[in-house]
Amino acid sequence: MSGRCCSLPGDPQPPTAVGRVLDRLETLFSIGGGPANRPGLSPAEQRAHDLAAGWMAEAGLEVAVDAAGNLVGRARGRSPELPEVWTGSHLDTVPNGGRFDGALGVVGGLEAVTAAHLRPRARTIAVVAFRDEEGWRFGQGYFGSRALCGRLRPGELDVCDASGTSIRRALASLGLPPPGLRLVGSGTQPLPGAFIELHIEQGTSLADRGLALGVVGEVVAMAGLTIRFSGERAHAGGTAMAQRRDALVAAARFVLGAHSLARSDAGWRATTGELTVHSPAGNVIADNVTVGVDARARSDESLGRLVSGLREVADASAGQGGCTWEASLAWQEPAARMSPPVSRALAAAAGQPAAGSIGATSWAGHDAAILAAAGIPAGMLFVRAGRAGVSHSPYETADAKDISVAIKTLGRALTELADGGWAEIGV
Amino acid sequence: MSGRCCSLPGDPQPPTAVGRVLDRLETLFSIGGGPANRPGLSPAEQRAHDLAAGWMAEAGLEVAVDAAGNLVGRARGRSPELPEVWTGSHLDTVPNGGRFDGALGVVGGLEAVTAAHLRPRARTIAVVAFRDEEGWRFGQGYFGSRALCGRLRPGELDVCDASGTSIRRALASLGLPPPGLRLVGSGTQPLPGAFIELHIEQGTSLADRGLALGVVGEVVAMAGLTIRFSGERAHAGGTAMAQRRDALVAAARFVLGAHSLARSDAGWRATTGELTVHSPAGNVIADNVTVGVDARARSDESLGRLVSGLREVADASAGQGGCTWEASLAWQEPAARMSPPVSRALAAAAGQPAAGSIGATSWAGHDAAILAAAGIPAGMLFVRAGRAGVSHSPYETADAKDISVAIKTLGRALTELADGGWAEIGV
Repeated sequence: MSGRCCSLPGDPQPPTAVGRVLDRLETLFSIGGGPANRPGLSPAEQRAHDLAAGWMAEAGLEVAVDAAGNLVGRARGRSPELPEVWTGSHLDTVPNGGRFDGALGVVGGLEAVTAAHLRPRARTIAVVAFRDEEGWRFGQGYFGSRALCGRLRPGELDVCDASGTSIRRALASLGLPPPGLRLVGSGTQPLPGAFIELHIEQGTSLADRGLALGVVGEVVAMAGLTIRFSGERAHAGGTAMAQRRDALVAAARFVLGAHSLARSDAGWRATTGELTVHSPAGNVIADNVTVGVDARARSDESLGRLVSGLREVADASAGQGGCTWEASLAWQEPAARMSPPVSRALAAAAGQPAAGSIGATSWAGHDAAILAAAGIPAGMLFVRAGRAGVSHSPYETADAKDISVAIKTLGRALTELADGGWAEIGV
Repeated sequence: MSGRCCSLPGDPQPPTAVGRVLDRLETLFSIGGGPANRPGLSPAEQRAHDLAAGWMAEAGLEVAVDAAGNLVGRARGRSPELPEVWTGSHLDTVPNGGRFDGALGVVGGLEAVTAAHLRPRARTIAVVAFRDEEGWRFGQGYFGSRALCGRLRPGELDVCDASGTSIRRALASLGLPPPGLRLVGSGTQPLPGAFIELHIEQGTSLADRGLALGVVGEVVAMAGLTIRFSGERAHAGGTAMAQRRDALVAAARFVLGAHSLARSDAGWRATTGELTVHSPAGNVIADNVTVGVDARARSDESLGRLVSGLREVADASAGQGGCTWEASLAWQEPAARMSPPVSRALAAAAGQPAAGSIGATSWAGHDAAILAAAGIPAGMLFVRAGRAGVSHSPYETADAKDISVAIKTLGRALTELADGGWAEIGV
């Protein structure tokens, strides 16, 4: 699609929008030293929020911060009492992350809101930057969107990161919640009437089909398991090979078994991105190893079977080497369906060339899925990723022309939702 | 042997010696909080040295600290110009270590020196506590004994631990080298004429044969390899299983392969006690994983074949998942033969019941092997380990009766070496 429909007659967007987006993504990328390093609820994420707040104010939006630290920039509509139309994403990143994941949805969303608001629409349009979507720091993501939707868990604010800092303390060190607001999970502000998240695909389905944009139909189900293998600490020299109860050998068997299991079903993915040997020493057989496994499947039922299978793999891996194991479910998100009317508005805004991409599956979790699970009509617009879909990496790329088309499409969809089409959505 | 020969007529050792040894081992064990935690060249190792210096002074020994921080307590002989007879071991431990590894040779050695010196011998007898034998902190062990023998590597003092502290800085923070001494590797003091190390076995060969003591014939060859696997950082959801270049999957395949390889030859041992995922995150495929492997074999030639085999396993493990690898040899110690005359003196001191245990193989590296490699006639006396030989663990155990017999045996051997038997040793 890119290169064929980069300017449509009557586009409300100034020609410099994409250049500004790319400049701002580069500015955000440089926070943390080059590869993006903006852990959720960290000073680096805060620096990104401060920059975005400045860009929102510069664009003439009303800027507000909610109890969870989510940043909202509003373009007031003619009927501000109506439910609002939001777009946005997040500004935190994984360690050594890329330029586009999350940040594109905030920075590009701001351009789309600005374009849609060239004249006031019936409903207020807003762009939001949610907090700590990635979740690797505190073990569960979507902190900001879950807080908005009243889905924080009891005691969650006392969860600590690897260095012992609690969510409560991380928030406080950023001056959060803002004075006068209480973080009670819900009720701190009205929920939006509709939400659209613009995001890089983080996969190859669009590139494989030669499409610049995709309208997401569903976000897969996913869960995080933490598995601890326990063996016997013993001397690397004095202990015969056959007498060992090596927890790292058990964990390695699990890593390979989880990989093989996920390969056995095209609807499954399993990733072991974290493995920790506790009290490691080169001349000591490990007795305590923790593995984190991220499991994803096309449906909640399929995810249940995958998680059961992973537990069986853990049991077999531990038992074969005389070790024991225990697993805990660190987090779980059900599969989420995007709102068909919102998706149709996106497809209409994208025009005929993108029609084939309606109903794409997102294998990545997104704030839009949290809002959808809370009953908010939500849609997602994917932009084709370059470099074989590599994401969560500094090598993540996207084409400037694709981004330009995406911003225009998002602007048109926001306009449509803010001015009409609500009977169908039913809010 | 235990229970059958706990007191011999004319034993020079006071009856409270074993109780004192066990008390002192418990005191050392408690440094660092319960399981022993005394990293080499750390304040915790220093605290142990300070305690030992006090115990040496209390026993009437002349206490000195050499350029590398090794602690030496001397009982002067009638002919102090003759080469000295030393015993001893080390006071550092692995993380979560036990009571006996190293510490027994220092604390028990002190009792044996005291017993042997009930009246002055011809030669000076000394007990030494070497620095940083375990080596897990800075990547190579035997720091103190290698310094004594002039075997520090060029640039070694600039090697850093995981927190970025160099050996030079760690020494300086302990006030080392002592004023007036230079750490140049050798020449700072005369080498001993003979050395005996008392140590817990860290294996089951003595327990399997019902023997309390063993006289070591050889210490196996060993090497440390560091292997880095590189893959591609990518999103845990967006990346199809078949498209992954997962460095942790490659590393896991290596861990299992190294384990299997070592099991294929009774003369080999391979241990992966350290594995680090760099920039880990649960929802990111790992692209950079380092594994440390400790390889041991009965001869230098056999070790060479094991290391070649491990490189082949690394190559196959990386290649199968589209990853790359590179290996570096972190350290290597050749097999070491103990001095036959010193071993005969030990066997004679142990008496008939221990004779069957002469020629035991040590699968653990020891300072005695470093001294032997430097041409110093060296011997080792092993004490039977309890609990299936578990060592490098807080569950390491040894029987009080066995320790008592070992101290008496060591005292008699030191007496013999300090008063005679030198024509045979040839020093």
